[in-house]
Amino acid sequence: MSIRSLITAKSELTHSTKAAVPVVLSTRIRLARNLKAIFPGRAEVAQREAILSQCQEVVGGLPEMKGGASISLGESDEIDQQALVERHLVSPELLASPEGAGVVISKNQACSIMINEEDHLRIQMVKTGFHFKKVWKAIDTVDTEIEKQVDYAFSPDWGYLTACPTNLGTGMRASVMMHLPGLVIAEQMEKVVKAVNQLGLAVRGLFGEGSDASGSIFQISNQQTLGESEEDIIKRLTGVLNTVIEQEQNARQKLLEDDRMSFLDKIGRAYGILTHSYYTHSGEAMNFLSLMRLAVDLGILPEDYRAVVDRLFIECQPAHIQLMTEGAEDPKARDAARAVMLRDHFGDATLNFDAVA
Amino acid sequence: MSIRSLITAKSELTHSTKAAVPVVLSTRIRLARNLKAIFPGRAEVAQREAILSQCQEVVGGLPEMKGGASISLGESDEIDQQALVERHLVSPELLASPEGAGVVISKNQACSIMINEEDHLRIQMVKTGFHFKKVWKAIDTVDTEIEKQVDYAFSPDWGYLTACPTNLGTGMRASVMMHLPGLVIAEQMEKVVKAVNQLGLAVRGLFGEGSDASGSIFQISNQQTLGESEEDIIKRLTGVLNTVIEQEQNARQKLLEDDRMSFLDKIGRAYGILTHSYYTHSGEAMNFLSLMRLAVDLGILPEDYRAVVDRLFIECQPAHIQLMTEGAEDPKARDAARAVMLRDHFGDATLNFDAVA
Repeated sequence: MSIRSLITAKSELTHSTKAAVPVVLSTRIRLARNLKAIFPGRAEVAQREAILSQCQEVVGGLPEMKGGASISLGESDEIDQQALVERHLVSPELLASPEGAGVVISKNQACSIMINEEDHLRIQMVKTGFHFKKVWKAIDTVDTEIEKQVDYAFSPDWGYLTACPTNLGTGMRASVMMHLPGLVIAEQMEKVVKAVNQLGLAVRGLFGEGSDASGSIFQISNQQTLGESEEDIIKRLTGVLNTVIEQEQNARQKLLEDDRMSFLDKIGRAYGILTHSYYTHSGEAMNFLSLMRLAVDLGILPEDYRAVVDRLFIECQPAHIQLMTEGAEDPKARDAARAVMLRDHFGDATLNFDAVA
Repeated sequence: MSIRSLITAKSELTHSTKAAVPVVLSTRIRLARNLKAIFPGRAEVAQREAILSQCQEVVGGLPEMKGGASISLGESDEIDQQALVERHLVSPELLASPEGAGVVISKNQACSIMINEEDHLRIQMVKTGFHFKKVWKAIDTVDTEIEKQVDYAFSPDWGYLTACPTNLGTGMRASVMMHLPGLVIAEQMEKVVKAVNQLGLAVRGLFGEGSDASGSIFQISNQQTLGESEEDIIKRLTGVLNTVIEQEQNARQKLLEDDRMSFLDKIGRAYGILTHSYYTHSGEAMNFLSLMRLAVDLGILPEDYRAVVDRLFIECQPAHIQLMTEGAEDPKARDAARAVMLRDHFGDATLNFDAVA
């Protein structure tokens, strides 16, 4: 499968209609793994290429990867690479050193394995909704299968060895993509970020930085990888995330109680612009989509639109727009194509504000 | 007729459906006149009241004023007074010294005569559209009728004597309310203001100052009242205004040719917000209405909406909203009422962007 067919294929995050839930967009785990060989950052090109070729064979042969794609970054277009970043299938870091770097992606794009990023292998598993147990089970299976065929760099004292000490031990980063418009509108996000940080977790905006993230989408993940088992990390993270979900729901409730009309005004205006503009910037689209997801959560838009929003969060990004409209390289042409796309998807919707009367 | 019934009655500016034209909203002439008595600003209250009573009788008895309203400012509510200012039936200056001040307003509100503002009489005549000849003829008739009954302060050398030397001579201020969104969007308004000023004319924003006027509505008037006949003033003014109209039409045409989509994007967004917001500020409403008038001019909205826009320009102002919704004294409640009013008027409209394809 080519990169261009990846972006139009049905994938876990763009077409998982039933799994979408309020507040949590997706659950993701990645494992950092290395072979007993020099780390990618210090390796010669020939060494990197040898590792790439070895890993592509092993990883590409996994049952999970059947029908998927194996991409050598050195051979792909910049715009295609950018689309992979927008799908979170590769990291920007992988693109920075494309020689001898690659990625293997499963058919439904739930599993992607980067080769020769900071570590030899970065295994990632993602699922729509809030599902740490399922994701952990799936990634653990893949990891075990790979370990049967390669010799991981592992120390009985330290655990999995990684290029950066912050990943040492489990090599695991577990995260959830959260949609927190209530906390953002109520201006409580800064406080939440601070509290979450103090519990040893990291918060970052998906389409921006810190508490000003456009789209009100935040990734919350563990920072610690050492001295705690994978299950304990997930358990602790889940506890905190449940609290954040509760705070978000409370914030929405309070906004509705205190100033229902201002809240509805925001949603109404976003819908009005979304369905009547002819140029829509990427950041603006994220904010409007965010408010449409909120509208679904509140029953103002029909449930079906939740999956539409989640798909458009991905497909409204610049490289996706450019690829889907065949060469809209000019930012204005992309803004125009994005506006058409949004109008097409939301033009026929009816807002039912009585749902929150 | 009471002030409250004035604001719901059919008037020249709110219900003159057929006369509305592109670019020019209305034509207005006012004449400053004084009796042979001490100017209002220097008069004692008793002297002002004597003049008021005399003038109310004379002016109220004019055939043009049959069925109209005669209001003594000292006896009226603040909110009612504010509504009169919003209708341009009285000046803010008249309200500053309400004792012994009044206004007589014709039934269709085309003619209003302030008593004891800066001068004893400020006669004003207004008409929807661009009609200096008709307006001049009408106000000249009223002026002549009054002059038959009172003794105007007049000097053979200087003409009509006025409290301020800037009105001396004809005492005439002729003005047109222009809708110039093309020049504002194309950022040419500053240049136009400068050129118009150099020709001895004044430009001021209706709902704001200078070139940033919200609603893109500007009043252009003569500054000179001395050494030129009324007909010459109007002729010169008309020449300049025709040039401004042409420049506005050119600016619109150029915007459509150079960047049609950005232009339509502005109109589309305004319509989208107008029909989906739950709180609309006064200034915002003026800007949206301005773009809706432009949409009518371009054929995007049906012709009928031009009169709707012109009426809402007046009725969306704070005191009008407050009076029409019975006591929405809280600005937020007014914004909510304004949003309902705008949704009610535009909710069913269909934008036809093919009109400018």
